[in-house]
Amino acid sequence: MAENYSVTPWEVKGKVDYDKLIVQFGTQKITDQLRRDLQSAVGELHPMLRREIFFSHRDFDIILKEWKEGRSFFLYTGRAPSLGMHIGHMIPFVFTAWLQKKFGVNVYIEITDDEKFMRNLEYSLDQTRQWALDNILDIIAAGFDPDKTFIFQDTEYIRNMYPLAIKIAKKLTFSEVKATFGLDVSSNIGIIFYPSLQIVPTMFEKRRCLIPAGIDQDPYWRLQRDIAESLGYYKAAQIHSKFLPPLTGPEGKMSSSVPESAIYLIDDHKTVERKVMKYAFSGGQPTVELQRKLGANLDVDVPYQWLYYFFEEDDQKIKRIAEEYSSGKMLTGEIKQILVEKINSFLDLHRERRERARDMVKDFKYEGRLARAMWEKIHE
Amino acid sequence: MAENYSVTPWEVKGKVDYDKLIVQFGTQKITDQLRRDLQSAVGELHPMLRREIFFSHRDFDIILKEWKEGRSFFLYTGRAPSLGMHIGHMIPFVFTAWLQKKFGVNVYIEITDDEKFMRNLEYSLDQTRQWALDNILDIIAAGFDPDKTFIFQDTEYIRNMYPLAIKIAKKLTFSEVKATFGLDVSSNIGIIFYPSLQIVPTMFEKRRCLIPAGIDQDPYWRLQRDIAESLGYYKAAQIHSKFLPPLTGPEGKMSSSVPESAIYLIDDHKTVERKVMKYAFSGGQPTVELQRKLGANLDVDVPYQWLYYFFEEDDQKIKRIAEEYSSGKMLTGEIKQILVEKINSFLDLHRERRERARDMVKDFKYEGRLARAMWEKIHE
Repeated sequence: MAENYSVTPWEVKGKVDYDKLIVQFGTQKITDQLRRDLQSAVGELHPMLRREIFFSHRDFDIILKEWKEGRSFFLYTGRAPSLGMHIGHMIPFVFTAWLQKKFGVNVYIEITDDEKFMRNLEYSLDQTRQWALDNILDIIAAGFDPDKTFIFQDTEYIRNMYPLAIKIAKKLTFSEVKATFGLDVSSNIGIIFYPSLQIVPTMFEKRRCLIPAGIDQDPYWRLQRDIAESLGYYKAAQIHSKFLPPLTGPEGKMSSSVPESAIYLIDDHKTVERKVMKYAFSGGQPTVELQRKLGANLDVDVPYQWLYYFFEEDDQKIKRIAEEYSSGKMLTGEIKQILVEKINSFLDLHRERRERARDMVKDFKYEGRLARAMWEKIHE
Repeated sequence: MAENYSVTPWEVKGKVDYDKLIVQFGTQKITDQLRRDLQSAVGELHPMLRREIFFSHRDFDIILKEWKEGRSFFLYTGRAPSLGMHIGHMIPFVFTAWLQKKFGVNVYIEITDDEKFMRNLEYSLDQTRQWALDNILDIIAAGFDPDKTFIFQDTEYIRNMYPLAIKIAKKLTFSEVKATFGLDVSSNIGIIFYPSLQIVPTMFEKRRCLIPAGIDQDPYWRLQRDIAESLGYYKAAQIHSKFLPPLTGPEGKMSSSVPESAIYLIDDHKTVERKVMKYAFSGGQPTVELQRKLGANLDVDVPYQWLYYFFEEDDQKIKRIAEEYSSGKMLTGEIKQILVEKINSFLDLHRERRERARDMVKDFKYEGRLARAMWEKIHE
């Protein structure tokens, strides 16, 4: 059956039908019951859970069940470093930091400076490592615990990971990884090995690993789930998010290679205002008169969706905005102005935290309690 | 044109025509002139050079020319660890140690505990690392300089090699490596990456690298020669040896998987005597009378070839043996007895050196002058 959208780890096209995607991918929907269980475990629900931005999972129900029985887990996420991060990139980090705060568990963040270098002919290793250092500041700014979070670059931590990596590699053939990772016989031999390095952190502890990520990343972890138990570890659990739509329209996902589609973490107030006013795709009517009469279509309106997905955490306020904008009481220019202010205050706070992060890099990478323990450990 | 032999990095079959092989592989013969140049550079020629056991090369002439101009080089060899080493395995190490002594240059010895593990379903990583430690004793016994030799295991030294390894990997596609390394789409993704780790040590110094090895290893280094200059390094020079024939016949090469074909470094006096007497393929005549009358065929006689290749360094003595045995003055039992004594005294001395090597492992791996410098260096 042909769909009007497609979701792979390297491309998201069209307007995604998330209910269908759950069926296609064979994941589980996050049910009301599961949300209640989570709320009863940690006392509250993050807005991204209340609003079903995180909407799908694998084995998150088992994680919660075992948690209630006194068994813990750990969190794992990562990033392929890039020249600059945009707002969409922050979603998994903000959510992972929240989970860490609520459960008090360890977080491992893999910075794949090797993968980024090997995937792109035009990048040098110096560049991807420079970006790694830069991106780490943004990641720390999401609010992780420096004694319970280990941030590591593959090119630095490889010694500690390699014995386990080759045990994983020995269980994965080229045929098995090529479709999932978009490889073929013209791929270089480094990027072919890389999937094993992505799997290693799911086995950093002999506990269940929970990976918060966009649902497009799910195929990568299926390989892990195929082999984990044969190596004496758990299948990786996941909690999947929808995609923050690009500024320019409700289809696909925000992309670094289309600058007007994204707000970067370094965009200043004026740039944010210009981008939102000029490019943000509107579900409002073409004239004030029509808008007053017919109201906006929230389903395709990007400013509304950004507020709903990320920037307006207050449920009362987002409800009021939805009512006023869809009824025509609020105009497109007004909701865009609300978004501009929300983005700018988020970015102001983010950049403050980012500056404070500079002194904390050494803790996350080398000297914090977890980091120290990790440098002493060879994963076998 | 079909040949009666075949030489690949993973199999040697038939009686090799070494002159033809030079043409097929596109290597250079070691000429009388080159031998004279080497002798004038270092004062003497190793028996393996005088007898053309080392018979072929790539760029060894350039190495010698540059040496005379005051430019140095370094040596690189390695080993995939195995349960026990046999006498054939010692040839490159004995010869490399001689080159080191004569030129006073650095030697790097890579122990591929990762490759051995990944290539063989039945081996555990613990096993291949245990064999690595054991084999290192035999290697040290060949007589390397502890301050100018660095012996390293891939699984330990990977951090220092990985940045350069991924730069190499980025230049090699699956298509390019698969034929050379005998891989296909059912190969595991670790062994596909491994060729880049084998190439890294050829770039440990910004000098020419000389690799002494069996000629069957030549194809591996062609990949290196294709990419080295684009990374700012030299094409690896090589000096190639013929194969010590298996005890059981003049064809193929000695194999660990056929125990009666090889003498192991741990074989005791009785075992050596039994193997040689029972299995050594003879070019002598079936009866004493015929032998006295017709003499032995040295071309197929394994005891003679082993003496010639390795065990009888004295040119006068080997000449006398050749004359007496081929003329029928010497009997098969007598040449076998000479070989048994030679092997046993080699093994006695080897095992003495091997015992002394135990205290030197830490120098070769970590604490010697070169080893210390190498652990401080990240290869980029």
